[in-house]
Amino acid sequence: MDGMKRVGFVGLGIMGSRMALKLHERGFDVTVWNRSRAKSEALAAQGLKTADSPASVARTVEVVCTCVADPAALESVALGDRGILLGAHPGLLFIDFSTVSAELSRTLEAKAKEAGVAYVEAPVTGSKNGAAKGTLLVMAGGDADVLERARPVLMAVGEKVIHCGPVGAAATVKLAGNALIALMLQGLSEGMLLAAKSGVDPATLLEVVQASGYRSPYFDFKGKALLARDFETHFSIDLMFKDLNLFLESAGKLKVPTPVVGAVREVYQLARAHGQGGRDITAVVTALEALSGIQLGGGSS
Amino acid sequence: MDGMKRVGFVGLGIMGSRMALKLHERGFDVTVWNRSRAKSEALAAQGLKTADSPASVARTVEVVCTCVADPAALESVALGDRGILLGAHPGLLFIDFSTVSAELSRTLEAKAKEAGVAYVEAPVTGSKNGAAKGTLLVMAGGDADVLERARPVLMAVGEKVIHCGPVGAAATVKLAGNALIALMLQGLSEGMLLAAKSGVDPATLLEVVQASGYRSPYFDFKGKALLARDFETHFSIDLMFKDLNLFLESAGKLKVPTPVVGAVREVYQLARAHGQGGRDITAVVTALEALSGIQLGGGSS
Amino acid sequence: MDGMKRVGFVGLGIMGSRMALKLHERGFDVTVWNRSRAKSEALAAQGLKTADSPASVARTVEVVCTCVADPAALESVALGDRGILLGAHPGLLFIDFSTVSAELSRTLEAKAKEAGVAYVEAPVTGSKNGAAKGTLLVMAGGDADVLERARPVLMAVGEKVIHCGPVGAAATVKLAGNALIALMLQGLSEGMLLAAKSGVDPATLLEVVQASGYRSPYFDFKGKALLARDFETHFSIDLMFKDLNLFLESAGKLKVPTPVVGAVREVYQLARAHGQGGRDITAVVTALEALSGIQLGGGSS
Amino acid sequence: MDGMKRVGFVGLGIMGSRMALKLHERGFDVTVWNRSRAKSEALAAQGLKTADSPASVARTVEVVCTCVADPAALESVALGDRGILLGAHPGLLFIDFSTVSAELSRTLEAKAKEAGVAYVEAPVTGSKNGAAKGTLLVMAGGDADVLERARPVLMAVGEKVIHCGPVGAAATVKLAGNALIALMLQGLSEGMLLAAKSGVDPATLLEVVQASGYRSPYFDFKGKALLARDFETHFSIDLMFKDLNLFLESAGKLKVPTPVVGAVREVYQLARAHGQGGRDITAVVTALEALSGIQLGGGSS
Repeated sequence: MDGMKRVGFVGLGIMGSRMALKLHERGFDVTVWNRSRAKSEALAAQGLKTADSPASVARTVEVVCTCVADPAALESVALGDRGILLGAHPGLLFIDFSTVSAELSRTLEAKAKEAGVAYVEAPVTGSKNGAAKGTLLVMAGGDADVLERARPVLMAVGEKVIHCGPVGAAATVKLAGNALIALMLQGLSEGMLLAAKSGVDPATLLEVVQASGYRSPYFDFKGKALLARDFETHFSIDLMFKDLNLFLESAGKLKVPTPVVGAVREVYQLARAHGQGGRDITAVVTALEALSGIQLGGGSS
Repeated sequence: MDGMKRVGFVGLGIMGSRMALKLHERGFDVTVWNRSRAKSEALAAQGLKTADSPASVARTVEVVCTCVADPAALESVALGDRGILLGAHPGLLFIDFSTVSAELSRTLEAKAKEAGVAYVEAPVTGSKNGAAKGTLLVMAGGDADVLERARPVLMAVGEKVIHCGPVGAAATVKLAGNALIALMLQGLSEGMLLAAKSGVDPATLLEVVQASGYRSPYFDFKGKALLARDFETHFSIDLMFKDLNLFLESAGKLKVPTPVVGAVREVYQLARAHGQGGRDITAVVTALEALSGIQLGGGSS
Repeated sequence: MDGMKRVGFVGLGIMGSRMALKLHERGFDVTVWNRSRAKSEALAAQGLKTADSPASVARTVEVVCTCVADPAALESVALGDRGILLGAHPGLLFIDFSTVSAELSRTLEAKAKEAGVAYVEAPVTGSKNGAAKGTLLVMAGGDADVLERARPVLMAVGEKVIHCGPVGAAATVKLAGNALIALMLQGLSEGMLLAAKSGVDPATLLEVVQASGYRSPYFDFKGKALLARDFETHFSIDLMFKDLNLFLESAGKLKVPTPVVGAVREVYQLARAHGQGGRDITAVVTALEALSGIQLGGGSS
Repeated sequence: MDGMKRVGFVGLGIMGSRMALKLHERGFDVTVWNRSRAKSEALAAQGLKTADSPASVARTVEVVCTCVADPAALESVALGDRGILLGAHPGLLFIDFSTVSAELSRTLEAKAKEAGVAYVEAPVTGSKNGAAKGTLLVMAGGDADVLERARPVLMAVGEKVIHCGPVGAAATVKLAGNALIALMLQGLSEGMLLAAKSGVDPATLLEVVQASGYRSPYFDFKGKALLARDFETHFSIDLMFKDLNLFLESAGKLKVPTPVVGAVREVYQLARAHGQGGRDITAVVTALEALSGIQLGGGSS
């Protein structure tokens, strides 16, 4: 880890800010940048350094990380006129934690290699709580030797790294995982709505699920939130909608039939139409509630 | 349990035969009946008694259980001209383990009460393995005092009983649970298809899922089966299709919007059109594979 | 037509009342019955006779017609304890104008034949305007010779009769036609919503459609209603929902994949959840409008 | 029209080649370019001129038209390094007949204006037969005065021009129209499948549709093709899939709920997975036929 003490972090949203802070806590010398300065300054107050562009960050570190909201943002911070690759220097390693398409990930790897920069894609799962605790699960795509170089940083933000294959593989796995989450939550939500309208306590459905062979920590997490009407944003509807679209675009190009992922996309669109895009994905159900006058939990909508 | 030694069991399919045998193993005096005699005789060879009609079963026992495939079969064995209620006698308790609609369950309770028979609905989950081991999860609907009378039988086939509410409530919870299972499996299958076509090993997706916060024993069970192309029937596509329809009919009557459960129903219909109705629900993916020429696992389809 | 002067009509809803009146206007001696008396009395005031049960109607006529809302109503008026078949007599012809499943239609034909009554299924299309004018399109199912006997009555309510095949065939064709209508209207509605939110006058979309090769009188009828926000009930959401379910049940039994009819069913369910079930099918769009805050036309919702 | 005799045409696919020829037949002096030379040469043999790049075409004409398959192709021929705008000159008018997103159309208009070029979007409908006869319906978006300048060319390829609004409006209307077509055809196909499996001649369904108030020339055209199993490509599944995606992307950005257009997209994806992407949209049904073993018409698949 000696040659890798200096780490840059570009993109300080819900996930990125917590990951950057975790790197700092674990002894890395961290320099950050964010499109809006307020977030950089909040971290500066906790001892992290700031820089005035992604390129500047890249110039001063051995490893530069990104964690941004969507493909356009990633293209901008990586390839833009003040972007990371303009700060390329021998030995630089670029780790992207964003959730983007396999295609964009492969494009970035190619451009990074042209600039003499090693590249790893490393989307994560575990929500903001996992980011805060450094217990994320990291899906990694890239050459094995580059991944080994990245491992100290990856293991500082996460507790497990799974090597999915070359660059693009981790993007695909991440998008498939998010689509699965969307279907799990939607299945729970629709079942709870039927229960509630049938006069059955939706908490009973959750109790049964969690006593069954199809139990999941995720149902515990999101089921309780639904019952408490806690829609605090861990993962927003807009971001999941983006990921479902990336999944479907990829399936579209590859001619893979994925009809039910297609169907859940349309329900996210109902929720966005209903003005819920910025809220947590648990709030998808509020669009169905609004239409039907049913309400799952005891709190206020 | 003294007054409840004699138990009848009507319907000896994948689940029922194992449950009847488990009751026998646990010391109940069990009399069975099945529409086709072969299954009764197989259990007779293991020491269970047989009777020549559901009514005959009912006459000779304190508790009569049913576990049949669909609403029509339940109506027939319960209300038919040789049905259980014709064998009604004071003190008889009727436990139905089938998965039917809340509406039918309530109708049966009413008819049972008219005949002086106590009624509990008790759909189960845990697949045939759970039935064989007596570790099912029982969702129970009915009056609390009747449920207490039923408990010794329920705890002989299952390891946990969750009281969901009055008769009808357990049917609703069971249908919601099955719909959730269908979405979980479909999400995993569509993700694995995308992975496979992208050149990513679908086993890697399963590894990531099971290392994540949305892991589930169910994904382990069904994911491994998908990868091994093991389509041995635990729960058939035709039965799940029936349950999705019951869920949607109930939602239809109650005006509950459940669009993604509606969408997964259509995929089950694709699989049935493809001639897969009798196979396990894992085989839904084979319809999508057949169209796309992708294959998830290494075995033969 | 001499032997067929006396005609009975059971079921005086939007369609039935207009058809009965048309038969009267065209010289038939018409006796009517309806579950609620007010509708019979309204026709009595115009010179039609009334009877006190479907059986009574049947006893006094050569041809008895039914036009009721759903399968349960048809079973009741045909087979119930004061039903038509109790009024069976030699030479009676039973014409059912309702939209029901092919299966129920075949069951009724069988029961009618047992009672010595000839049977024709004759679902119609053309909306209440067509019923008022006697210009309906009649889809007929039944034996050719029975159909010939029915023709004078059919041609009194309609302007064209298409013989679809044996009993059941016309039911299938009718349900397929209604599903097609639902998709046409939904396509127009979703397109108009996109236009409106894009700042394009939805009337321009309608103008283009009607100038194109995919123009239809139906788009003219329903498109103008959408733009005028005229949701007066010609064909209610609840009735279409029933028909979509009948279509899907039939497809389910026959293992025919019909995924997009399945999808439009879910949108009708959204509209029913939204309390629009009794309004015209044009009002489906109001559920989507309510979520999104878009409004197609200039009137009030 | 004197100042507008010289017209360029870029993109000589199914539609473009016929439109270019029609302009030639109607007296315009036409110069063409296509990515693959074979198509240019075929038109050269009929007396049209050719050029070696879109830029060269633009330099020599007063009006340059494009009709290409997708957004990427349009960006390339318009903005690429041998693209149309490099051939910009005072008085040049750019008419795009392609079906693209409103967003891209607005971007092109802006870039054209920067280069001093007037711009009209003019997507068309009417299939290749309409293109061959010059009877297309033109949806036009742009400033009214520019549209007047374009009118002689538009009326040479079409028989009616509908001004939809500013640039972007015609793109939106065109995409909505195509989505409507997809739903009409899908509704007819699913209904025919149900009819066929029910033992009813699908031709009878078509006869009923065409006798009803929801008749359409489009059903006559496509219904006959389905029955004859004529899948000759007028409009390919891949192109419709592109258009459905453009519709859904636009709806996604604008937060318009369009669930049934979303559902039909997934069926097109089934057909593409099934290897039918290059065939006519009537061939979507073959994917459902392949799964179910049903066949609509009498010919071979």
